[in-house]
Parts: sequence; structure tokens; C-alpha cells
Amino acid sequence: MTVTFNTLDEFRALLKTAPHADQNALSEAADRNGQLTKPPGALGRLEDVALWYASWRGEAAPQISAPQVIIFAGNHGVTAQGVSAFPAEVTAQMVMNFEHGGAAINQLAKTFGASLNVHALDLDRPTADFTEGPAMTEAEVVAALQTGWNAVDANADVLVTGEMGIGNTTSAAAIGAALLGGAAADWTGRGTGVDDAGLANKTRVVEQGLAANAGRDGLEVLRKLGGRELAAMVGAIARARFGQIPVILDGFICCAAAACLEKEEAGALDHCVAGHLSAEGAHEKLLAGIGKEPLLSLGLRLGEGSGAALALGVLKAALACHSGMATFAEAGVSDA
Amino acid sequence: MTVTFNTLDEFRALLKTAPHADQNALSEAADRNGQLTKPPGALGRLEDVALWYASWRGEAAPQISAPQVIIFAGNHGVTAQGVSAFPAEVTAQMVMNFEHGGAAINQLAKTFGASLNVHALDLDRPTADFTEGPAMTEAEVVAALQTGWNAVDANADVLVTGEMGIGNTTSAAAIGAALLGGAAADWTGRGTGVDDAGLANKTRVVEQGLAANAGRDGLEVLRKLGGRELAAMVGAIARARFGQIPVILDGFICCAAAACLEKEEAGALDHCVAGHLSAEGAHEKLLAGIGKEPLLSLGLRLGEGSGAALALGVLKAALACHSGMATFAEAGVSDA
Repeated sequence: MTVTFNTLDEFRALLKTAPHADQNALSEAADRNGQLTKPPGALGRLEDVALWYASWRGEAAPQISAPQVIIFAGNHGVTAQGVSAFPAEVTAQMVMNFEHGGAAINQLAKTFGASLNVHALDLDRPTADFTEGPAMTEAEVVAALQTGWNAVDANADVLVTGEMGIGNTTSAAAIGAALLGGAAADWTGRGTGVDDAGLANKTRVVEQGLAANAGRDGLEVLRKLGGRELAAMVGAIARARFGQIPVILDGFICCAAAACLEKEEAGALDHCVAGHLSAEGAHEKLLAGIGKEPLLSLGLRLGEGSGAALALGVLKAALACHSGMATFAEAGVSDA
Repeated sequence: MTVTFNTLDEFRALLKTAPHADQNALSEAADRNGQLTKPPGALGRLEDVALWYASWRGEAAPQISAPQVIIFAGNHGVTAQGVSAFPAEVTAQMVMNFEHGGAAINQLAKTFGASLNVHALDLDRPTADFTEGPAMTEAEVVAALQTGWNAVDANADVLVTGEMGIGNTTSAAAIGAALLGGAAADWTGRGTGVDDAGLANKTRVVEQGLAANAGRDGLEVLRKLGGRELAAMVGAIARARFGQIPVILDGFICCAAAACLEKEEAGALDHCVAGHLSAEGAHEKLLAGIGKEPLLSLGLRLGEGSGAALALGVLKAALACHSGMATFAEAGVSDA
């Protein structure tokens, strides 16, 4: 589905036309689930996600065979404020690492049979420092949304959106505070590993960003406090829904982007499941803010889509069980 | 390694000769982990399990390519007391289902590239009803231990032990109470789904089992309150260690069996990781009793090795990252 939007209002209008889950497929999937050779409910959350997935794919017994992982990379003007333990050039270096297959996400995508695409967004043109005003112009955020939208493979059957961007936990903290309230300190964490002084500085930067940028609706917050890679994730998540492609959300930064979408248009994340709970402290509040329960909690705080890619294994397993198991009648097993 | 043991004492003596983790490999793996292109610790628990796995394989950067899942099935005399929501013939019916590829564990093994072996242990000869005395004679428990021992593929590089046996949550509850103390009610849950009256009856049966069987050391508890499939899991877990094969423990019943081994010989589960936290209520206490932290918590309560097989995806991913990622130097990425 090729769609071009030139303004945030055009993107907003598009969101209102998004399709919904297929209730017939959900009902048929639930019937099937009740007949499978296991005690009722014995596969726990695997059963829930299988039914949810079936409802979005519009099939009673779908399989997952074409997962897509997309990593978006962007640079942040706010790194000038010394918010990260790593220098800003690491964003571009890690993009090379993704392209050469050396990063964690490369190994995870391979392990679970996912394709991996990398989109570097204007790395030589960082967003503006949001302590001094909006990070992006409308034209910039719209271009990034469009990049994300266009990056989704129409033949994918599940999508993971990941990111790389030195400074982007600062951006995500500011977004969390702007959308969901609370003090900057409640939302600011150590990211890639700043020390106590670094954390205090980062918190001050988030406070300044909030003070310098009024307005709290979703896409405006994304424009003012986000970054290109966050906007691209929003575009990709929105696009996936139009293609009946369920999405696994990653950690703190991905969920900050997703929260912008949800706050703009309630229910816009219904086709998304939370892959994991990150070790970045405020992720739990962000998940609560978008009403999602994570599948995994393994202390990851890497980004790159890594937590969501790990959860891809769980989702694949859930659908393999749902769609591959024999029923009591087929197997000749006595029901309870 | 072909080993034959004819008595529990011979098996006990064997346990004392078990090998330990390779500290050189652990140290080399830790060095490698510190150089990979990620912030220190950013892969959380994946890093911990990768190092643990490397130490047991005796390699700094191992991969997982030959996982083995073994399901042991046994029948329990205590089913005469009406402790399960399913009739006892379901054990044999589910063995057929495993053999025909229709059960949850078949789909999970396929999803994560594991071989699957099924061993039905004397299904036509249930253990004795443990409310009246020991479930097994010494000859019976030793034979089951030997079956488990012999079932392990020497070329496997990780092992999942699963089970099927109508009535075996009753057995596991009695084992938990016998080994770790507390009231029968603290250890007795709904298993495949008994109602309130069924739960009260099951609790009474566990109490009677404890009263009828004195002696609290590990392998005696296994003999008196366990079952053939539990003993076979003990034999397989013990055997895996001699082949440097790390083990992923499954849920309540697998961990009850494993607890017998740990209580018999402290440290005997050092080569094992807990795959998941089961929805069977007392599993958490059992995990605490053997000092294991589960990788997953998804509300599964199926047995068959299903939770451990799901965790196999996590372990494979952990080793894919550990052994496949580029170092900072290799990738030309600036360190913090």
C-alpha cells in the first residue's frame, strides 16, 4: 500500500482509517484453541498471543514464516549536552556493524529467521537540541514518518521495530514525561551507562527540554522531543496495521515512540504486543501508560529491537503450537 | 559414556564423581563478553546464561546446534484416588500423540530445532499407590534412573527433560513437601484442572502419602513418592553432566525430580538452568528450594518439557549473541 502524506494532519487523518482485528478469525481461533490436546489454558500467555495474532492476520490458524526486523538510526542534537556514555559517532559506527552482521540484533534476527533492514536517517544532520526548542520541523518529522512507513515489507507477517541513536534514551525520557506526566527524574535513567553525575545532568536536560517545548499531544511531542528514528518507528508501526502485520514492541525508546502514536489516536497500538520489560527503569511506567504487559523480563537494555526480536521466538512458538497441534478428536485423546 | 548401576548406592557413588564447570572457559568467555559491541551488561540475563553455558561446554564461544528434548512417560497408582481431571489412559494416548507429532512439545521442538525422543516407562505397570507405602521398589527406581541415563544423546549440546503422567502433580507436591517442608496444602495445586473438591481430595492424598512414607533424603523420596518418569528425568539430568551437556529444567514435576537430585548431592544441578516459572502455584517454592531463577514466566502449566523448550529459544539466542557478535575492535566502534 503506497501512501504519501505531506503534513502531520494528513498522517493524522490516515490513522483514523486504520483497520481493526477480525472478530470472526478470533472466534474461530478460540474454538480451535479449546480443542487442542492440552488442559484448557495450560499454554498460558502463548494461547493469548496466538489468538491475538490470529485476529490481526484474519486467519484461524496462521503460522509465522516471514518476520521482518527494521532498525532505524538517527542522531540527536541533544548529545551536545553530554547525555550519553558513548560519543555521537557511535550511531554511524553501529549502522556499519548492523550492515556487516556484527551486532546483537543480527544474531537474534538470524536465530529466529527474520529478515533485517537498516535505515540510517540523515545521520549527518542531527535533530536540533531540544533544550532550545523543537527537535524537528514538521517537514522533518513527516519525512521520517514516511521513511518508516515505506520500510515495511508488505509480505512480512510480523514486524519488529528497533532503533539506534546515541542520546535517544534522553529523548524517550522527555517523551514519557510529556505524555504521561511526572518529574523528569522519574523518567530519566542511565541509558548506555552514565554515572551519577551524568544522570543528574541528563535529568536537567530532560527538564529543560520539557520547559522549552509546550504542547502535549502525541505527534507534536514526537516532533518536539523525539528524533528521526523514533518518528520512523511510528510510521512503520502505523503502516504495519494497514497490512494486517502484528508488531512486537521493543524497549524504552520504541515504546516512547509508540506512546506518541497511542496518545494521538487511542487504540492505535491494538495490533502491537510488548516484547519485553527493559532494565531501563522507566520502561515499566511507559508500558503501563500504553496498557501493555511484556512477554519477557530478562534485564535487557540494548535497544536495536533486541528484546522484541527475542520475543519473536515466543510468538513463533505460540503460533506453532496453536496452528500445529492436534485436536483431542484428531489424536484420539480423552477430554477431561 | 555407558554406565550401569544396579543399586541406589551405586548411583549415589556415581554422582560424587560428576565433573565441574570449566573455570578457564568461563574466564575466557567473560573476557570476550566484555569486548562485544554493546554497553556492558546491556544483554542482561542473556549474558549470564551465555557464560554459564560456556563454562559447562568448556569453550569460550560455543554455539547451540544439537538440542535434545526427551519426554518420559509413566503411570501412577495414586490415580486410583481420583487426583486428576483426566483419566489415567490419557498418559498412553498422549505418548501416541507425541509419536505422531501432534502435541505442544512437538511444535516447540520443531520451532527451536531440537530432536525429540519419547520413552514410555512400563505404562501398563503403574507405580504403587503411595498413600499405602512406597511408590517404587529399589529395583524399579533404579531401572527408571537407568532408562533416563541411557536416553541422553552424547552428541546433544543442551538437554530438555519433559514428562507426561496423569497424577504426577500429586507426586511432585508430595516430593516438595517431603524435601522442603511445609503443609501438604502449600504444595498441592490444581494440576490439569481439578475443581475445589478435587483439590481438597488431592491435598488429603498428599498428606496420606507423606504419612505413609518416612525418610527424607533425596533418592529415597524419589523412590517412595515419585514415579518412573520422574526417576528417568533424574537419571537423564545426572547423565547430561557427565557429557558436559547443560540442562534446561521444565516446570513443577521436572523440578520436583531435580530437587531429589539436589537434596541427595548438593550442587548436582549446577549444570541446569530453570526454563520457566509454571502457573502451578508451588513451583515458585520448588525453584527457591533448588536456588534457581526462571528465565520465563508466561503462565504455562502443561509439562511435556514445554516451558523448558520455550526457554531453549532464549538460550540459543544468548549463545548466538555471545559467540556471533563482533568486538569493538573488529567492528571499529568506539568504546565508552
